[in-house]
Amino acid sequence: MKVGILGAGQLAQLLAHSAYILGIETLCFSDTKDTPAARCSPLFLGDLHDEKALKAFAEQCDVITLENENIDIAILKSLQQYTRVLPEPDAIRVAQDRLFEKTLFQDQHIPTPLFAAVDSLATLNAAIQEIGVPAILKTRRFGYDGKGQCVIHSADQAEHAWNMIGNVPAILEGFVKFDFEVSMLAARNASNDIIFYPLIKNTHEQGILRISESPFIHPQLQQRAEDYITRLLTHFDYVGVLAFEFFVQGDQLIANEIAPRVHNSGHLTIEGFNVSQFESHLRSVTDLPLIQPVLRAPTIMHNIIGVFPQVTKKEYAAAHVYHYGKSERPERKLGHITFFK
Amino acid sequence: MKVGILGAGQLAQLLAHSAYILGIETLCFSDTKDTPAARCSPLFLGDLHDEKALKAFAEQCDVITLENENIDIAILKSLQQYTRVLPEPDAIRVAQDRLFEKTLFQDQHIPTPLFAAVDSLATLNAAIQEIGVPAILKTRRFGYDGKGQCVIHSADQAEHAWNMIGNVPAILEGFVKFDFEVSMLAARNASNDIIFYPLIKNTHEQGILRISESPFIHPQLQQRAEDYITRLLTHFDYVGVLAFEFFVQGDQLIANEIAPRVHNSGHLTIEGFNVSQFESHLRSVTDLPLIQPVLRAPTIMHNIIGVFPQVTKKEYAAAHVYHYGKSERPERKLGHITFFK
Repeated sequence: MKVGILGAGQLAQLLAHSAYILGIETLCFSDTKDTPAARCSPLFLGDLHDEKALKAFAEQCDVITLENENIDIAILKSLQQYTRVLPEPDAIRVAQDRLFEKTLFQDQHIPTPLFAAVDSLATLNAAIQEIGVPAILKTRRFGYDGKGQCVIHSADQAEHAWNMIGNVPAILEGFVKFDFEVSMLAARNASNDIIFYPLIKNTHEQGILRISESPFIHPQLQQRAEDYITRLLTHFDYVGVLAFEFFVQGDQLIANEIAPRVHNSGHLTIEGFNVSQFESHLRSVTDLPLIQPVLRAPTIMHNIIGVFPQVTKKEYAAAHVYHYGKSERPERKLGHITFFK
Repeated sequence: MKVGILGAGQLAQLLAHSAYILGIETLCFSDTKDTPAARCSPLFLGDLHDEKALKAFAEQCDVITLENENIDIAILKSLQQYTRVLPEPDAIRVAQDRLFEKTLFQDQHIPTPLFAAVDSLATLNAAIQEIGVPAILKTRRFGYDGKGQCVIHSADQAEHAWNMIGNVPAILEGFVKFDFEVSMLAARNASNDIIFYPLIKNTHEQGILRISESPFIHPQLQQRAEDYITRLLTHFDYVGVLAFEFFVQGDQLIANEIAPRVHNSGHLTIEGFNVSQFESHLRSVTDLPLIQPVLRAPTIMHNIIGVFPQVTKKEYAAAHVYHYGKSERPERKLGHITFFK
């Protein structure tokens, strides 16, 4: 069984590392040799816009999955001529666009911040009137780690914000004063089995995930998050791991965004659980039986961002240290450290 | 930190796979690209008898370790000119020769079968007189998986046995009627910290390990095994994982052999324990703090030998399947499967 992965960054690296314990081979599509996944997987070097390369890649793979949702849907459709692509491209299409995503939450009766589509300064001004301030202008596509976002505190900041995000299609979201953020990871396979991880509590700074912790025990929120994510899994006939990020406000969950893939907040599942999100994703896309996740011990993960610190021997005594093999650069995710609390 | 590994078979593969979770790089010395470790680690292609290659390899590594004790000690000494080699070559020298090994057990007051050195038909006949029959003639070096051994049931079989093992230096061992076999894995680092895994119960067929299980609970034998292996660790000023195989006879342990490396019977430590033998070995040779092994759940490992079976989906629900990437061949270890019992 060979699983193709579109992309060869750290998520592909961790998927490939996990594939090994299932006897599954991986092949990562990359335009460069110098990439994290090269450490754990053979690469297929090519250009995603080269139809011949897509065909040659797909013909080697029993199934293709991805580590990044920002892939042109036409590429996924093209790959589908030759082999299975999971999750379904329609889930990717929705997840890569904040307007589609929020609209789906609304359609599925999942609470989400007020939002309005913005495609000009005029529509932005109208949206500010409708939603009020403070609000956040976010590009519909290609936003990550807080990029492509601008907070608007008063109506006269509209033009500045519109220029800041580059005059591209966007949504305006009402500002949610949340207590903290959580994420739900679930996996579904083609046999319609679904497993859920317990909610993970996340701390962001400057839009970048810094710390994830498990367990976060709140049976009511857990039940609600399982309910919400099940609606999406069923809607898409989804196969793979789906990550769902929420704001917590009192005992309410407010949907922020989904990621149709393994997720940074789930890295702690490697050490913290009997089955990692990476293994669950691979089991899903290869239609292997899913394993019910059980927390082994309270676990905390710190992202390593920008500069790789000197890890002390004392820290090493209780930690697993992941180095993605990338060079240092401000705000870049270079690795992570997982501790048992 | 880069750890060089002499050899690139499945033990190197599993070490390299484990190095990843410690942020440690590996480099496996191999004379061929087509080898299991290639999946998980960069290779250094070269010939162990090429002094220039040894130097070039060693100069890239912070420390060098091995996956197979059958390496010419002169090669290890040569590598020591350029970097650290762990475990110490003297431990390798003893472990690769059954006469040295058994003599050490005797010197350390560790019970072991009766034995006598054999280097000719005449000395074999004398040894049979001394030890009696049944007895086993074993080559001093290069025996593994039951190879290089011949059982002698009566004195008149001496010549046949001597020819069978190829007229090479050997030992004759008294036959031990044991109840079953166990192995003890321990790790020691340069700071003289030592950790022990609980005894693992092993089942061999035709000289090849088939099944390993943990836990095997017997506090008295556990205590005795820890005592015996500590004597050897201390004697060698040993750094790394040491495996010690014993015969169990009632409440006695009888030393069979040691392996100065990670060991097939310890593969179940990957899933079964909070820290695997591979991680413990890497922690030892890089002088990181050792972690006290704790069994997570009763675990059993089956070796996959000769033919790779079709693993059913049901088995996959509860198992991790390791495929070393080797072609099928009678008696060849192709992979292993680990289940929670």
